[in-house]
Amino acid sequence: NHIIVCGYGRNGKQAVQKLLDYKKDFIIVEQDQQVIDDCGLDQVNFIRGNANEDEVLIKAGIEKSSTLITALPEDADNLFIVLSARQLNKDLKIISRATEDTSYKKLKLAGADNVILPDTIGGQHMASLIVSPDLIEFWDQLSYGGSEGVNLEQVSFEQMFDEQRECSILDLNMRQKTGCTIIGYKSPDGEYIVNPDPSQKLTQGSKIIVVGNTDQIQQLQRAYRINTEVT
Amino acid sequence: NHIIVCGYGRNGKQAVQKLLDYKKDFIIVEQDQQVIDDCGLDQVNFIRGNANEDEVLIKAGIEKSSTLITALPEDADNLFIVLSARQLNKDLKIISRATEDTSYKKLKLAGADNVILPDTIGGQHMASLIVSPDLIEFWDQLSYGGSEGVNLEQVSFEQMFDEQRECSILDLNMRQKTGCTIIGYKSPDGEYIVNPDPSQKLTQGSKIIVVGNTDQIQQLQRAYRINTEVT
Ligand SMILES: [Ca+2]
Ligand SMILES: [Ca+2]
Repeated sequence: NHIIVCGYGRNGKQAVQKLLDYKKDFIIVEQDQQVIDDCGLDQVNFIRGNANEDEVLIKAGIEKSSTLITALPEDADNLFIVLSARQLNKDLKIISRATEDTSYKKLKLAGADNVILPDTIGGQHMASLIVSPDLIEFWDQLSYGGSEGVNLEQVSFEQMFDEQRECSILDLNMRQKTGCTIIGYKSPDGEYIVNPDPSQKLTQGSKIIVVGNTDQIQQLQRAYRINTEVT
Repeated sequence: NHIIVCGYGRNGKQAVQKLLDYKKDFIIVEQDQQVIDDCGLDQVNFIRGNANEDEVLIKAGIEKSSTLITALPEDADNLFIVLSARQLNKDLKIISRATEDTSYKKLKLAGADNVILPDTIGGQHMASLIVSPDLIEFWDQLSYGGSEGVNLEQVSFEQMFDEQRECSILDLNMRQKTGCTIIGYKSPDGEYIVNPDPSQKLTQGSKIIVVGNTDQIQQLQRAYRINTEVT
Protein backbone atom coordinates (compact mmCIF):
# COMPACT_ATOMS: atom_id res chain seq x y z
CA ASN A 1 0.00 0.00 0.00
CA HIS A 2 2.98 2.25 -0.64
CA ILE A 3 3.78 4.93 -3.23
CA ILE A 4 6.25 4.48 -6.10
CA VAL A 5 8.05 7.59 -7.40
CA CYS A 6 9.78 7.14 -10.78
CA GLY A 7 12.56 9.69 -11.30
CA TYR A 8 14.31 11.77 -8.65
CA GLY A 9 14.80 14.97 -10.65
CA ARG A 10 13.56 18.41 -9.57
CA ASN A 11 9.95 17.33 -9.89
CA GLY A 12 10.24 13.95 -8.17
CA LYS A 13 12.40 15.43 -5.43
CA GLN A 14 9.76 17.98 -4.51
CA ALA A 15 7.02 15.35 -4.48
CA VAL A 16 9.20 13.14 -2.25
CA GLN A 17 9.83 16.06 0.13
CA LYS A 18 6.10 16.47 0.64
CA LEU A 19 5.59 12.71 1.06
CA LEU A 20 8.32 12.75 3.74
CA ASP A 21 6.62 15.68 5.51
CA TYR A 22 3.45 13.65 5.70
CA LYS A 23 5.23 10.46 6.68
CA LYS A 24 3.98 8.52 3.68
CA ASP A 25 5.51 5.19 2.76
CA PHE A 26 7.31 5.39 -0.60
CA ILE A 27 10.03 3.95 -2.80
CA ILE A 28 11.94 5.77 -5.54
CA VAL A 29 12.99 4.22 -8.85
CA GLU A 30 16.07 6.04 -10.17
CA GLN A 31 18.55 5.06 -12.87
CA ASP A 32 21.45 7.27 -11.90
CA GLN A 33 23.61 5.92 -9.04
CA GLN A 34 25.14 9.37 -8.57
CA VAL A 35 21.71 10.89 -7.88
CA ILE A 36 21.06 8.15 -5.30
CA ASP A 37 24.43 8.71 -3.63
CA ASP A 38 23.95 12.49 -3.44
CA CYS A 39 20.37 12.64 -2.22
CA GLY A 40 20.87 12.27 1.53
CA LEU A 41 17.90 9.91 1.82
CA ASP A 42 17.94 6.43 3.28
CA GLN A 43 19.14 3.87 0.72
CA VAL A 44 16.12 1.64 1.46
CA ASN A 45 13.96 4.26 -0.28
CA PHE A 46 15.67 3.56 -3.62
CA ILE A 47 15.62 0.96 -6.33
CA ARG A 48 18.27 1.53 -8.93
CA GLY A 49 16.90 0.73 -12.35
CA ASN A 50 14.96 1.84 -15.39
CA ALA A 51 11.23 2.19 -14.64
CA ASN A 52 10.62 1.42 -18.31
CA GLU A 53 11.23 -2.24 -17.46
CA ASP A 54 8.36 -4.26 -16.00
CA GLU A 55 10.66 -6.24 -13.71
CA VAL A 56 11.87 -3.01 -12.09
CA LEU A 57 8.29 -1.91 -11.38
CA ILE A 58 7.53 -5.38 -10.02
CA LYS A 59 10.61 -5.21 -7.81
CA ALA A 60 9.28 -1.85 -6.53
CA GLY A 61 6.14 -3.72 -5.48
CA ILE A 62 3.77 -2.26 -8.03
CA GLU A 63 1.25 -5.06 -7.66
CA LYS A 64 0.50 -4.11 -4.05
CA SER A 65 1.17 -0.36 -4.23
CA SER A 66 -1.55 2.30 -4.00
CA THR A 67 -0.07 5.07 -6.13
CA LEU A 68 2.58 5.69 -8.77
CA ILE A 69 4.10 9.07 -9.57
CA THR A 70 6.12 9.20 -12.78
CA ALA A 71 8.17 12.39 -13.05
CA LEU A 72 10.74 11.72 -15.75
CA PRO A 73 11.85 14.61 -17.98
CA GLU A 74 10.80 12.92 -21.25
CA ASP A 75 7.07 12.56 -21.96
CA ALA A 76 7.69 9.39 -23.98
CA ASP A 77 9.26 7.70 -20.93
CA ASN A 78 6.36 8.73 -18.70
CA LEU A 79 3.91 7.41 -21.28
CA PHE A 80 5.67 4.06 -21.40
CA ILE A 81 5.66 3.79 -17.60
CA VAL A 82 1.98 4.78 -17.30
CA LEU A 83 1.01 2.12 -19.83
CA SER A 84 3.12 -0.56 -18.14
CA ALA A 85 1.93 0.39 -14.66
CA ARG A 86 -1.72 0.31 -15.66
CA GLN A 87 -1.28 -3.20 -17.07
CA LEU A 88 0.43 -4.42 -13.91
CA ASN A 89 -2.12 -2.94 -11.49
CA LYS A 90 -5.67 -1.99 -12.50
CA ASP A 91 -6.49 -0.23 -9.22
CA LEU A 92 -3.35 1.89 -9.03
CA LYS A 93 -3.68 5.68 -8.81
CA ILE A 94 -1.30 6.98 -11.49
CA ILE A 95 -0.02 10.58 -11.53
CA SER A 96 2.23 11.65 -14.41
CA ARG A 97 4.32 14.68 -15.21
CA ALA A 98 4.18 16.05 -18.77
CA THR A 99 6.19 18.71 -20.57
CA GLU A 100 4.14 19.17 -23.75
CA ASP A 101 0.43 20.10 -23.76
CA THR A 102 -0.12 17.51 -26.47
CA SER A 103 1.01 14.72 -24.16
CA TYR A 104 -1.84 15.33 -21.70
CA LYS A 105 -4.45 13.40 -23.66
CA LYS A 106 -2.05 10.58 -24.53
CA LEU A 107 -1.10 10.05 -20.90
CA LYS A 108 -4.77 10.02 -19.89
CA LEU A 109 -5.53 7.49 -22.62
CA ALA A 110 -2.62 5.34 -21.46
CA GLY A 111 -4.17 5.18 -18.00
CA ALA A 112 -3.00 8.18 -15.95
CA ASP A 113 -5.54 9.47 -13.41
CA ASN A 114 -3.88 12.88 -13.15
CA VAL A 115 -1.47 14.63 -15.49
CA ILE A 116 0.54 17.59 -14.16
CA LEU A 117 2.10 20.10 -16.57
CA PRO A 118 4.61 22.08 -14.49
CA ASP A 119 5.04 24.89 -17.02
CA THR A 120 1.29 25.32 -17.35
CA ILE A 121 0.81 25.54 -13.60
CA GLY A 122 3.84 27.84 -13.37
CA GLY A 123 2.52 30.16 -16.08
CA GLN A 124 -0.92 30.36 -14.47
CA HIS A 125 0.70 31.08 -11.15
CA MET A 126 2.74 33.94 -12.67
CA ALA A 127 -0.34 35.55 -14.20
CA SER A 128 -2.34 35.05 -11.00
CA LEU A 129 0.28 37.08 -9.16
CA ILE A 130 -0.83 39.95 -11.40
CA VAL A 131 -4.59 39.51 -11.58
CA SER A 132 -5.29 38.43 -7.99
CA PRO A 133 -2.15 38.88 -5.89
CA ASP A 134 -3.90 38.87 -2.51
CA LEU A 135 -5.88 35.72 -3.26
CA ILE A 136 -2.75 33.87 -4.39
CA GLU A 137 -0.80 35.08 -1.39
CA PHE A 138 -3.64 34.03 0.91
CA TRP A 139 -3.89 30.57 -0.65
CA ASP A 140 -0.11 30.05 -0.71
CA GLN A 141 0.11 30.55 3.01
CA LEU A 142 -2.78 28.23 3.78
CA SER A 143 -1.44 24.89 4.90
CA TYR A 144 -3.13 21.52 4.60
CA GLY A 145 -2.62 17.81 4.77
CA GLY A 146 0.25 17.94 7.25
CA SER A 147 0.58 17.72 11.00
CA GLU A 148 1.30 21.31 12.02
CA GLY A 149 -0.31 24.65 11.36
CA VAL A 150 -3.05 23.19 9.18
CA ASN A 151 -5.74 25.61 7.95
CA LEU A 152 -7.86 23.38 5.73
CA GLU A 153 -9.39 20.02 6.52
CA GLN A 154 -11.85 17.63 4.95
CA VAL A 155 -14.33 15.77 7.16
CA SER A 156 -16.38 12.86 5.90
CA PHE A 157 -19.97 12.14 6.92
CA GLU A 158 -18.72 8.92 8.50
CA GLN A 159 -16.28 10.86 10.69
CA MET A 160 -19.00 13.25 11.80
CA PHE A 161 -21.75 10.78 12.60
CA ASP A 162 -21.64 7.35 14.17
CA GLU A 163 -25.31 6.82 13.53
CA GLN A 164 -26.41 6.97 9.90
CA ARG A 165 -29.21 9.53 10.19
CA GLU A 166 -29.34 12.45 7.83
CA CYS A 167 -28.52 15.89 9.12
CA SER A 168 -27.92 19.43 7.81
CA ILE A 169 -24.89 21.72 7.98
CA LEU A 170 -26.79 23.92 10.46
CA ASP A 171 -27.18 20.93 12.83
CA LEU A 172 -23.38 20.52 12.98
CA ASN A 173 -23.05 23.79 14.87
CA MET A 174 -19.51 23.88 13.50
CA ARG A 175 -18.57 27.46 14.30
CA GLN A 176 -19.63 27.22 17.94
CA LYS A 177 -18.19 23.72 18.40
CA THR A 178 -14.76 24.22 16.77
CA GLY A 179 -14.51 27.83 15.55
CA CYS A 180 -14.03 26.52 11.98
CA THR A 181 -15.97 27.73 8.95
CA ILE A 182 -17.44 25.38 6.34
CA ILE A 183 -16.51 26.53 2.82
CA GLY A 184 -17.32 23.50 0.70
CA TYR A 185 -19.50 20.41 0.39
CA LYS A 186 -18.69 17.32 -1.68
CA SER A 187 -21.67 15.17 -2.58
CA PRO A 188 -21.48 11.33 -2.57
CA ASP A 189 -21.12 11.41 -6.38
CA GLY A 190 -18.21 13.87 -6.26
CA GLU A 191 -19.89 17.20 -7.06
CA TYR A 192 -18.61 20.22 -5.15
CA ILE A 193 -20.74 23.03 -3.77
CA VAL A 194 -18.82 26.17 -2.84
CA ASN A 195 -19.99 27.97 0.33
CA PRO A 196 -22.93 25.60 0.92
CA ASP A 197 -26.16 26.82 2.46
CA PRO A 198 -26.70 25.99 6.16
CA SER A 199 -29.77 24.00 5.09
CA GLN A 200 -27.56 21.70 2.94
CA LYS A 201 -28.32 18.06 3.87
CA LEU A 202 -25.39 15.80 4.74
CA THR A 203 -25.70 12.22 3.62
CA GLN A 204 -23.56 9.08 3.69
CA GLY A 205 -20.53 9.39 1.43
CA SER A 206 -20.54 13.19 1.53
CA LYS A 207 -17.77 15.41 2.87
CA ILE A 208 -17.32 18.97 4.04
CA ILE A 209 -14.30 21.24 3.53
CA VAL A 210 -13.53 23.59 6.39
CA VAL A 211 -11.13 26.47 7.00
CA GLY A 212 -9.76 27.59 10.35
CA ASN A 213 -6.70 28.75 12.21
CA THR A 214 -4.34 26.16 13.71
CA ASP A 215 -6.16 25.95 17.06
CA GLN A 216 -9.57 25.71 15.45
CA ILE A 217 -8.48 22.90 13.12
CA GLN A 218 -6.93 21.01 16.04
CA GLN A 219 -10.20 21.35 17.90
CA LEU A 220 -11.99 20.01 14.82
CA GLN A 221 -9.60 17.07 14.51
CA ARG A 222 -10.16 16.20 18.15
CA ALA A 223 -13.93 16.65 17.96
CA TYR A 224 -14.24 14.33 14.97
CA ARG A 225 -11.30 12.05 15.82
CA ILE A 226 -9.67 12.78 12.47
CA ASN A 227 -6.69 10.55 11.91
CA THR A 228 -4.06 12.86 10.52
CA GLU A 229 -1.81 9.85 9.88
CA VAL A 230 1.06 11.72 11.50
CA THR A 231 2.55 10.90 14.89
CA ASN B 1 0.85 50.80 -17.20
CA HIS B 2 1.03 47.59 -19.20
CA ILE B 3 2.64 44.17 -18.65
CA ILE B 4 5.75 42.95 -20.47
CA VAL B 5 6.13 39.19 -20.99
CA CYS B 6 9.63 38.04 -22.02
CA GLY B 7 9.55 34.69 -23.80
CA TYR B 8 6.58 32.97 -25.41
CA GLY B 9 7.42 29.35 -24.55
CA ARG B 10 5.13 26.99 -22.65
CA ASN B 11 5.39 29.08 -19.51
CA GLY B 12 4.95 32.49 -21.10
CA LYS B 13 2.11 31.23 -23.29
CA GLN B 14 0.11 30.07 -20.29
CA ALA B 15 0.66 33.37 -18.48
CA VAL B 16 -0.45 35.26 -21.61
CA GLN B 17 -3.57 33.11 -21.90
CA LYS B 18 -4.60 34.13 -18.41
CA LEU B 19 -3.80 37.79 -19.06
CA LEU B 20 -6.01 37.60 -22.18
CA ASP B 21 -8.84 36.04 -20.14
CA TYR B 22 -8.71 38.99 -17.78
CA LYS B 23 -8.36 41.54 -20.57
CA LYS B 24 -5.01 42.83 -19.31
CA ASP B 25 -2.85 45.07 -21.49
CA PHE B 26 0.42 43.32 -22.39
CA ILE B 27 3.27 43.09 -24.86
CA ILE B 28 5.43 40.03 -25.55
CA VAL B 29 9.16 40.16 -26.26
CA GLU B 30 10.13 37.10 -28.33
CA GLN B 31 13.26 36.38 -30.34
CA ASP B 32 11.95 33.68 -32.65
CA GLN B 33 9.97 34.99 -35.66
CA GLN B 34 8.53 31.50 -36.24
CA VAL B 35 6.99 31.49 -32.74
CA ILE B 36 5.42 34.89 -33.46
CA ASP B 37 4.05 33.74 -36.84
CA ASP B 38 2.54 30.56 -35.35
CA CYS B 39 0.96 31.98 -32.22
CA GLY B 40 -2.37 33.18 -33.58
CA LEU B 41 -2.18 36.39 -31.53
CA ASP B 42 -2.37 39.92 -32.86
CA GLN B 43 1.03 41.09 -34.18
CA VAL B 44 0.74 44.30 -32.15
CA ASN B 45 1.25 42.21 -29.01
CA PHE B 46 4.79 41.33 -30.09
CA ILE B 47 8.19 42.92 -30.18
CA ARG B 48 10.73 40.78 -31.92
CA GLY B 49 14.05 40.96 -30.15
CA ASN B 50 16.30 39.78 -27.37
CA ALA B 51 15.07 40.89 -23.95
CA ASN B 52 18.70 40.76 -22.81
CA GLU B 53 19.21 44.10 -24.58
CA ASP B 54 18.18 47.27 -22.77
CA GLU B 55 16.97 48.93 -25.96
CA VAL B 56 14.50 46.09 -26.55
CA LEU B 57 13.07 46.51 -23.04
CA ILE B 58 12.87 50.26 -23.59
CA LYS B 59 11.09 49.69 -26.90
CA ALA B 60 8.62 47.49 -24.99
CA GLY B 61 7.91 50.52 -22.80
CA ILE B 62 9.55 49.28 -19.62
CA GLU B 63 9.84 52.77 -18.16
CA LYS B 64 6.06 53.17 -17.95
CA SER B 65 5.05 49.53 -17.48
CA SER B 66 3.64 48.13 -14.23
CA THR B 67 4.86 44.53 -14.37
CA LEU B 68 7.43 42.34 -16.13
CA ILE B 69 7.20 38.56 -16.42
CA THR B 70 10.38 36.85 -17.58
CA ALA B 71 9.79 33.23 -18.54
CA LEU B 72 12.84 32.20 -20.57
CA PRO B 73 14.08 28.61 -20.32
CA GLU B 74 17.59 29.55 -19.09
CA ASP B 75 17.94 30.92 -15.57
CA ALA B 76 20.98 32.98 -16.60
CA ASP B 77 18.87 34.83 -19.19
CA ASN B 78 16.11 35.50 -16.67
CA LEU B 79 18.70 36.79 -14.19
CA PHE B 80 20.13 39.17 -16.76
CA ILE B 81 16.67 40.49 -17.63
CA VAL B 82 15.65 40.92 -13.98
CA LEU B 83 18.79 42.92 -13.28
CA SER B 84 18.35 45.11 -16.39
CA ALA B 85 14.64 45.65 -15.75
CA ARG B 86 15.19 46.66 -12.13
CA GLN B 87 17.74 49.24 -13.24
CA LEU B 88 15.40 50.67 -15.86
CA ASN B 89 12.35 50.89 -13.57
CA LYS B 90 12.58 50.96 -9.78
CA ASP B 91 8.81 50.58 -9.22
CA LEU B 92 8.28 47.67 -11.59
CA LYS B 93 6.77 44.43 -10.26
CA ILE B 94 9.10 41.70 -11.56
CA ILE B 95 8.07 38.03 -11.72
CA SER B 96 10.65 35.50 -12.91
CA ARG B 97 10.61 31.84 -13.85
CA ALA B 98 13.46 29.66 -12.58
CA THR B 99 14.48 26.09 -13.32
CA GLU B 100 17.07 25.45 -10.58
CA ASP B 101 16.33 25.85 -6.85
CA THR B 102 19.69 27.58 -6.48
CA SER B 103 18.59 30.40 -8.83
CA TYR B 104 15.77 31.47 -6.51
CA LYS B 105 17.95 33.52 -4.18
CA LYS B 106 19.99 35.01 -7.03
CA LEU B 107 16.88 36.22 -8.85
CA LYS B 108 15.53 37.74 -5.65
CA LEU B 109 18.86 39.51 -5.05
CA ALA B 110 18.82 40.79 -8.63
CA GLY B 111 15.46 42.44 -7.98
CA ALA B 112 12.66 39.94 -8.68
CA ASP B 113 9.58 40.34 -6.48
CA ASN B 114 8.37 36.80 -7.13
CA VAL B 115 10.24 33.75 -8.40
CA ILE B 116 8.24 30.81 -9.73
CA LEU B 117 9.84 27.35 -9.95
CA PRO B 118 7.49 25.31 -12.19
CA ASP B 119 8.97 21.92 -11.27
CA THR B 120 8.72 22.69 -7.58
CA ILE B 121 5.08 23.71 -7.87
CA GLY B 122 4.43 20.69 -10.10
CA GLY B 123 6.05 18.28 -7.64
CA GLN B 124 4.09 19.71 -4.72
CA HIS B 125 0.91 19.46 -6.73
CA MET B 126 1.61 15.78 -7.49
CA ALA B 127 2.17 14.94 -3.84
CA SER B 128 -0.88 16.97 -2.80
CA LEU B 129 -2.99 14.79 -5.06
CA ILE B 130 -1.99 11.94 -2.73
CA VAL B 131 -2.07 13.56 0.68
CA SER B 132 -5.17 15.78 0.30
CA PRO B 133 -6.93 14.91 -2.96
CA ASP B 134 -10.27 16.50 -2.02
CA LEU B 135 -8.71 19.76 -0.91
CA ILE B 136 -6.72 20.05 -4.14
CA GLU B 137 -9.75 19.18 -6.24
CA PHE B 138 -11.83 21.73 -4.35
CA TRP B 139 -9.24 24.47 -4.79
CA ASP B 140 -8.62 23.65 -8.46
CA GLN B 141 -12.25 24.20 -9.28
CA LEU B 142 -12.49 27.48 -7.41
CA SER B 143 -12.29 30.35 -9.82
CA TYR B 144 -11.02 33.84 -9.14
CA GLY B 145 -9.86 37.05 -10.72
CA GLY B 146 -11.95 36.65 -13.87
CA SER B 147 -15.35 37.84 -14.99
CA GLU B 148 -17.43 34.69 -14.87
CA GLY B 149 -18.13 32.06 -12.27
CA VAL B 150 -15.87 33.65 -9.67
CA ASN B 151 -15.82 32.02 -6.20
CA LEU B 152 -13.21 34.09 -4.41
CA GLU B 153 -12.96 37.84 -4.09
CA GLN B 154 -10.94 40.35 -2.13
CA VAL B 155 -12.63 43.50 -0.82
CA SER B 156 -10.68 46.44 0.54
CA PHE B 157 -11.77 48.60 3.48
CA GLU B 158 -12.00 51.51 1.06
CA GLN B 159 -14.47 49.59 -1.12
CA MET B 160 -16.60 48.69 1.91
CA PHE B 161 -16.77 52.08 3.60
CA ASP B 162 -17.03 55.57 2.21
CA GLU B 163 -16.62 57.09 5.63
CA GLN B 164 -13.40 56.29 7.44
CA ARG B 165 -14.85 55.00 10.73
CA GLU B 166 -13.63 51.72 12.15
CA CYS B 167 -15.94 48.75 12.13
CA SER B 168 -15.83 44.99 12.83
CA ILE B 169 -16.47 41.97 10.62
CA LEU B 170 -19.71 41.34 12.51
CA ASP B 171 -20.96 44.84 11.55
CA LEU B 172 -20.59 43.98 7.86
CA ASN B 173 -23.43 41.46 8.10
CA MET B 174 -21.81 39.79 5.08
CA ARG B 175 -23.68 36.48 5.05
CA GLN B 176 -27.10 38.11 5.24
CA LYS B 177 -26.22 40.90 2.80
CA THR B 178 -24.53 38.83 0.07
CA GLY B 179 -24.57 35.16 1.11
CA CYS B 180 -20.74 35.15 1.01
CA THR B 181 -18.51 33.84 3.78
CA ILE B 182 -15.42 35.70 5.03
CA ILE B 183 -12.41 33.33 5.19
CA GLY B 184 -9.49 35.73 5.53
CA TYR B 185 -8.38 39.14 6.73
CA LYS B 186 -5.32 41.04 5.52
CA SER B 187 -4.05 43.73 7.86
CA PRO B 188 -2.75 47.09 6.60
CA ASP B 189 0.83 45.82 7.07
CA GLY B 190 0.19 42.68 5.01
CA GLU B 191 -0.36 40.03 7.70
CA TYR B 192 -3.05 37.44 6.97
CA ILE B 193 -5.49 36.02 9.50
CA VAL B 194 -7.24 32.84 8.41
CA ASN B 195 -10.92 32.52 9.38
CA PRO B 196 -10.96 35.81 11.32
CA ASP B 197 -13.14 36.24 14.38
CA PRO B 198 -16.38 38.23 13.92
CA SER B 199 -15.01 40.73 16.42
CA GLN B 200 -11.99 41.44 14.14
CA LYS B 201 -11.72 45.22 13.61
CA LEU B 202 -11.49 46.50 10.05
CA THR B 203 -9.25 49.51 9.53
CA GLN B 204 -8.06 51.64 6.63
CA GLY B 205 -5.76 49.67 4.33
CA SER B 206 -7.11 46.30 5.42
CA LYS B 207 -8.84 43.74 3.18
CA ILE B 208 -11.10 40.75 3.55
CA ILE B 209 -11.07 37.56 1.47
CA VAL B 210 -14.48 36.00 0.82
CA VAL B 211 -15.77 32.79 -0.72
CA GLY B 212 -19.14 32.30 -2.36
CA ASN B 213 -20.97 30.74 -5.28
CA THR B 214 -21.28 32.70 -8.53
CA ASP B 215 -24.52 34.46 -7.56
CA GLN B 216 -23.26 35.37 -4.13
CA ILE B 217 -20.01 36.84 -5.47
CA GLN B 218 -21.97 38.86 -8.05
CA GLN B 219 -24.15 40.20 -5.27
CA LEU B 220 -20.99 41.11 -3.35
CA GLN B 221 -19.47 42.84 -6.38
CA ARG B 222 -22.65 44.86 -6.86
CA ALA B 223 -23.00 45.69 -3.16
CA TYR B 224 -19.43 47.00 -2.92
CA ARG B 225 -19.16 48.30 -6.50
CA ILE B 226 -16.12 46.12 -7.15
CA ASN B 227 -14.53 46.98 -10.45
CA THR B 228 -13.70 43.60 -11.96
CA GLU B 229 -11.82 45.38 -14.75
CA VAL B 230 -13.62 43.18 -17.28
CA THR B 231 -16.34 44.37 -19.63
CA1 LIG C 1 -5.45 15.33 6.95
CA1 LIG D 1 -11.41 40.76 -9.24
